[in-house]
Formats: sequence, structure tokens, C-alpha cells
Amino acid sequence: MAYGFTIQRRVEFSETDMAGIVHFSNFFRYMESVEHAFFRSLGLSIAPKGADSVGWPRVHADFDYRRPLRFEGTFEVDLLVREKRERSLVYTIIVRKTNADAEEVARGSLAVACVRKDPVTGTMASVAIPAEIGELIEAAPAELLAGGRR
Amino acid sequence: MAYGFTIQRRVEFSETDMAGIVHFSNFFRYMESVEHAFFRSLGLSIAPKGADSVGWPRVHADFDYRRPLRFEGTFEVDLLVREKRERSLVYTIIVRKTNADAEEVARGSLAVACVRKDPVTGTMASVAIPAEIGELIEAAPAELLAGGRR
Amino acid sequence: MAYGFTIQRRVEFSETDMAGIVHFSNFFRYMESVEHAFFRSLGLSIAPKGADSVGWPRVHADFDYRRPLRFEGTFEVDLLVREKRERSLVYTIIVRKTNADAEEVARGSLAVACVRKDPVTGTMASVAIPAEIGELIEAAPAELLAGGRR
Amino acid sequence: MAYGFTIQRRVEFSETDMAGIVHFSNFFRYMESVEHAFFRSLGLSIAPKGADSVGWPRVHADFDYRRPLRFEGTFEVDLLVREKRERSLVYTIIVRKTNADAEEVARGSLAVACVRKDPVTGTMASVAIPAEIGELIEAAPAELLAGGRR
Repeated sequence: MAYGFTIQRRVEFSETDMAGIVHFSNFFRYMESVEHAFFRSLGLSIAPKGADSVGWPRVHADFDYRRPLRFEGTFEVDLLVREKRERSLVYTIIVRKTNADAEEVARGSLAVACVRKDPVTGTMASVAIPAEIGELIEAAPAELLAGGRR
Repeated sequence: MAYGFTIQRRVEFSETDMAGIVHFSNFFRYMESVEHAFFRSLGLSIAPKGADSVGWPRVHADFDYRRPLRFEGTFEVDLLVREKRERSLVYTIIVRKTNADAEEVARGSLAVACVRKDPVTGTMASVAIPAEIGELIEAAPAELLAGGRR
Repeated sequence: MAYGFTIQRRVEFSETDMAGIVHFSNFFRYMESVEHAFFRSLGLSIAPKGADSVGWPRVHADFDYRRPLRFEGTFEVDLLVREKRERSLVYTIIVRKTNADAEEVARGSLAVACVRKDPVTGTMASVAIPAEIGELIEAAPAELLAGGRR
Repeated sequence: MAYGFTIQRRVEFSETDMAGIVHFSNFFRYMESVEHAFFRSLGLSIAPKGADSVGWPRVHADFDYRRPLRFEGTFEVDLLVREKRERSLVYTIIVRKTNADAEEVARGSLAVACVRKDPVTGTMASVAIPAEIGELIEAAPAELLAGGRR
């Protein structure tokens, strides 16, 4: 079972804004990138092809911003599973600079619901996380989630 | 004094994702668009040219998502001033469909700090909101902020 | 029959980059916005719901950049139908500042193919533009397409 | 001297649109990513800090699209220096799937001017490419630029 994943990135020019820093909305793209990389690390895809596959719509997302990221700066995005519920998952997402101090840039959370398309009505309905997915994922240790900011 | 503003928009194709709905990160762009339109409605700019002008870096942003938005759908983004502090502002942001029911699509908040560049060190430092800006803005009535979801 | 359309816009903060101007990739989003507005002006949608509806994948897109656009600057995006072929359309797209001189900011072109999903194989195949769409669209007068730059 | 560079990428969810494929505007972000990686490979930055450093505004950009890219698909973006002029550079950009056939997805070009800010007027003026940059870059062999599409 896994409770986390980390990706490495470098700030691209198109992610900056006229203030010279990464636009705050792009952190939510980083957040999703690590979520999808976490699924790939488990041999899963967030968007599988099967007709009866589940989807993961976003229910809540937030970030607290502490420091800016600048063009060509390298950083990592950490995902930790904060809560594993019957029908949803909540992740803690931490963005840190890739430097000796690993300074925390931003910290947020993402809550996603597990849904499946009703074959009759075509609407999305909340469902229990399938066992074959749920058995791969566990909540991260509390001490990691409380991890001191640097 | 003003405590809110509303903009009207239509979903653009480039804002959708392969799930057929507006990508969740784009709501944070809508959030910022109404913030800047609010400032323009007061005769201000969020990015004035003067050397001693203040800036408004994002400290926190969040959204709860209730319904999807789809291509060419029309919607409004409401901003309400939730808190006016000495050195920061907190907004409530509500996205609603432009239909008879004005269905709530998403609700979030944005907290921004008032900063000014130190002329000596060049670093940004938290400052009190200048009087000429502060006197134009007030917190919205509590009943509006608590406004029932539709 | 129609051969053109114009939309009005204002530069958003999230469209700028660290050079302080609109990122060049965003002009291609403006290009598409006016294309879709042109279709709406004809009572059509670029993404209709019907099972036998046609789609318009992009085959070519280009821009020549002459002047930058800056935050909160207002501009218009003009679309002119340059060529109407049996199975494709080519548009000329001109971005101009909304000022007395209507200075040209950028000029480009967009070529789109008319396709329909094969009900058996599920693949997209080039098809003739349906008569009910083709009869609404004509090529713009040559003198407009050659329109002097300002 | 160098005449090209290649980066490897994977399609992110936020880069797709409701047609289920990468939005055509994002290819121009890929185009810029490989340009900046090419500069880094030479020990340069496209956005250096020095007061007398040169900048590289975009003058022209285009793409021809042949195949779609889909979520989680891996691809490479190749840059080849097509023309090295006194005051500008023209690149050929080729996007290929990372599969056995290396299928060509899109092919385009990017022309950039070399400019320097006038210390008196503050405006950007076209200048010759500095020797310390120009001596690192050469045009790619013609046979590579004509490289057969796969």
C-alpha cells in the first residue's frame, strides 16, 4: 500500500505572470499532476478507458502560499494521503523548492469523490472506492502529515 | 464604499478538459478576474504603475465545487468582501449559472496581503492598506455572505 | 451569409507572463474564441450535441506578432473568412488595440477541417461542409483581407 | 556549437480539452519549453538577470497539426535551428509520439528577434546577437531540417 508520491519540476516561462512569479492558479495544475502521477505509480490511471470505470471529480481544493516560485526554479510537489474514506480521498499537497533548505513554497489540500456513470441515466453517482483501488492506498502516518514547515 | 462586484462570462473551449467540463484550476482565474474587475469598478488597478504603489500577493485561495460548468454555458462570478483587515483583505467568491435558478456552481475564498516594495532592499513587506484604497472598501453585510445556496 | 465577426476583450492578469506582456500562446486562445463567437453569431455551435454533427479540428495555426498587449489593455479580435473550400475553412485573424489608431498587434491564420465520426469505426473522417452550415458562410471581400495594417 | 535539442514530456490532464485531446494552443507552450531547454543546454538562460542582457521576443509562430495527442501519452519535442541571422533566429519544432514509429504529431516554426532595452528610452531595440551567444549556435544540417515525416 502507498500513501504518497513526489514529482520534480522546473518552472516554465508560460507559468509566470507579470509579477515575475508563478501564477497562483498554476499551483492547482501542479496539485493535479502529482495526483495523477500517484495513480500511475500504483499502476492505475485517473482516466481509465473502461465503460464501468470510476472517475474522481474535484470536490474541494485549496492552497496557502508562503513564498513565490520563479522562472527556471526547480521544485518538488509532494502528495500525502490525508484521509481515505469509503467514497472519497483527501490529499495534502506540499510544494517545496529543490534546494538545501527544501523551503516550503505552498501547502494545500485536494478532496476528490469516487463516482461512476449510471448506465441508464448517464449521470454521475457517488460510489464506494472499488476494492482493487482501495487496497493499494492508505492514509499517511500522522507525523508526516503534521510535518514541520521549513 | 463598495463591498462587492459581479462579472458575466461564457465558458470558452480552451477552459474545458477531457471530462467535458471547465478544469477546476480555471475557477481560480475567474476568481482573480472578478477581483481585478472589482478594483477597476473603484477606479483602481490591481497593478498600478507608480513606484510606491502597493501590490496584493495571494496568501490563500480555495474553492468548493458543487456542479460542473460546460462549454458555452454562461455564468456569473460574484465577489463579496468578507473581511477588511489592516493589512489584508478576504473575499468570498461565488460562481453561479446564469439561468432562472442561478444555481451555485462553486464557492470559495481568496485572501490577499497588502505589500509594498522596500526601496532599499527591494523585498516586499507587509504594509497597512493605504487610506485612499481602504476608504473605498467595506465588508459586505453578514446576511449576504451567509447567502443561501441555490 | 456572413464572412466575419469581431469580439472585444480586456487583457487578464493570468494571460501575462514575466515579460509583462500577454504570453504569445494566448493569442491562439483569442483566435479560437472569435471562431466560436462567429459560429454562435450564425446560430451554430462549434461543438453541437447531435450524434451526426461535424467537428472542426485545427489543421494549421500561425501568428505574426507586431506589438505587445499589456495588462488591462482592451483589444478586439477580428475574424475574416479567407477561404471556403469543400471540406475546410481558412480564417484570417487580426488582433487590434481598442484605441483611436486601432494599432495592429498581431495577424494570423487558422485552417480547420470539417470531419465527422464514422459510426462504425469511431474514427474521424474528412467530409464536405454540410449545406446548412456552408450556406451561412462566404469568403470575405479581397480588399478586406488585404486590409492595410495600421 | 549546437543546432538542436530534444525534450521528453507526458500529456497532463489540464492540457486536454473537451475533444479529449491536447488543446492546439498548448503546442505553442511545448514549443517554448524546448527553446528554453535548448538555451539551458548551452549554459544560457532565455531570461538572464543582467541589466544589459538581451531578450528574445516572438516574431512568428506556427504549427501544422497531423495527429492528436491524448492524456498520459508520451511525446518528444525536437528543436532544430533553421536559420541563424544577424539579429534573429528561426527554429523548426517537431512533436513526435514516443513510440516505435515516432509518429509525427505536429511540425512548426518559431522566429525570435534579439533585442536589448535602451538604457535611456527604456524601449526594446533590435540588436545583433551577442558573439558569446552566437558562437554557441549554428544552423542544423539541411538533411535534418528536411527530415522525412514518419
